[in-house]
Amino acid sequence: MSDADLLFRLAALNAAYARCIDDDRLEDWPELFLERCTYKITSAENLRRGYAAGIVYADSRAMLRDRVAALREANIYERQTYRHIVGMPALREAGTIAAETPFLVVRTMRDGRMDLFATGVYLDRVQDDAGALRFAERIVVCDSSRVDTLLAIPL
Amino acid sequence: MSDADLLFRLAALNAAYARCIDDDRLEDWPELFLERCTYKITSAENLRRGYAAGIVYADSRAMLRDRVAALREANIYERQTYRHIVGMPALREAGTIAAETPFLVVRTMRDGRMDLFATGVYLDRVQDDAGALRFAERIVVCDSSRVDTLLAIPL
Amino acid sequence: MSDADLLFRLAALNAAYARCIDDDRLEDWPELFLERCTYKITSAENLRRGYAAGIVYADSRAMLRDRVAALREANIYERQTYRHIVGMPALREAGTIAAETPFLVVRTMRDGRMDLFATGVYLDRVQDDAGALRFAERIVVCDSSRVDTLLAIPL
Repeated sequence: MSDADLLFRLAALNAAYARCIDDDRLEDWPELFLERCTYKITSAENLRRGYAAGIVYADSRAMLRDRVAALREANIYERQTYRHIVGMPALREAGTIAAETPFLVVRTMRDGRMDLFATGVYLDRVQDDAGALRFAERIVVCDSSRVDTLLAIPL
Repeated sequence: MSDADLLFRLAALNAAYARCIDDDRLEDWPELFLERCTYKITSAENLRRGYAAGIVYADSRAMLRDRVAALREANIYERQTYRHIVGMPALREAGTIAAETPFLVVRTMRDGRMDLFATGVYLDRVQDDAGALRFAERIVVCDSSRVDTLLAIPL
Repeated sequence: MSDADLLFRLAALNAAYARCIDDDRLEDWPELFLERCTYKITSAENLRRGYAAGIVYADSRAMLRDRVAALREANIYERQTYRHIVGMPALREAGTIAAETPFLVVRTMRDGRMDLFATGVYLDRVQDDAGALRFAERIVVCDSSRVDTLLAIPL
């Protein structure tokens, strides 16, 4: 697979990921990960200091599903919607399937107000799983350390 | 045409669309639509509630041209400029030419202040019109319901 | 090289450019330019008025390196970080290697606050330099004229 084709497939995977969240189809979101996977939300400062701990952590698709179920039960995120704007992936090495991709999320409140909710970079390792690309690892590195501790939705 | 090629042509169409507006070449904007077309601006909430009505509606290229002429006459949008940041299109089905594409628009006022003007998603149906891709339908779904009722420029 | 391939290589160049700045690897940033090159930051209003002068100007890779060295010495930008979100390049003419690319930069302050720092368009001329694309010219046209006169980082 050429780098151009790979970039396109990664861009398509990122678009699918963003749509799950922004269209409030959270149940589809875990399906974009491998059964055994790493999903973590952390901050650039944590990463710089070598703190392994993230704000959110999951190591299997089952945990991601549990997380979505808990969110649905808590029902606390309904008052706002999100919009991901995701940049083009940069392959960490030519030919590999490890990528860095910048993102920005805008939050819209029920009353129509919009704010910059988060910016950062996705550090990804991706695998071809029977013809579909899925995340083996997605580490969400937020630029701001002031990420909402009640962070409900996936980023 | 492969999906990768199609995505590229869609990305190029979206870039041309954004440039017409952001470079204030509004007269070129209707040319990106088919003669018979649908252009609509609405909100996610309207769409959810099944309201067909949009904030802006046109069903032909001629109507889009009229709209631009009216804007030029009114001349009310000159004090600000806009910048579209448009994500990668997601094909609704592999091989089709129906796409969803997230967007964000920043407005810059004459005095230099910037704000988040709009975010949302383009729901598009596109056709190859003698070698050039054009919009058969573009429905602009804004995340915020508080879209400016005096909305002047196309989104 | 097809337009699709060219767009991909441009998108990869833009991603590399953004990462140098956002990851604070400024020393790698001049390497993305040719030895003899033009780098300029200006505003849309300056451009419209025909003012040649920019806010920042360099005409060689050596000048860009000097700029980075001065920034490192001044050490004034450490309190904030930046995140570039860069759109897809639009080729100015099919087959050429001159492109226009919209961008948005979000700044995150040490205390976690985020703001829209800059939006605008890159006007680029690019060359293949022994297999790697490099900038012969990058003119950064900011939408706002109120660009920080103490502008430290490259945009």
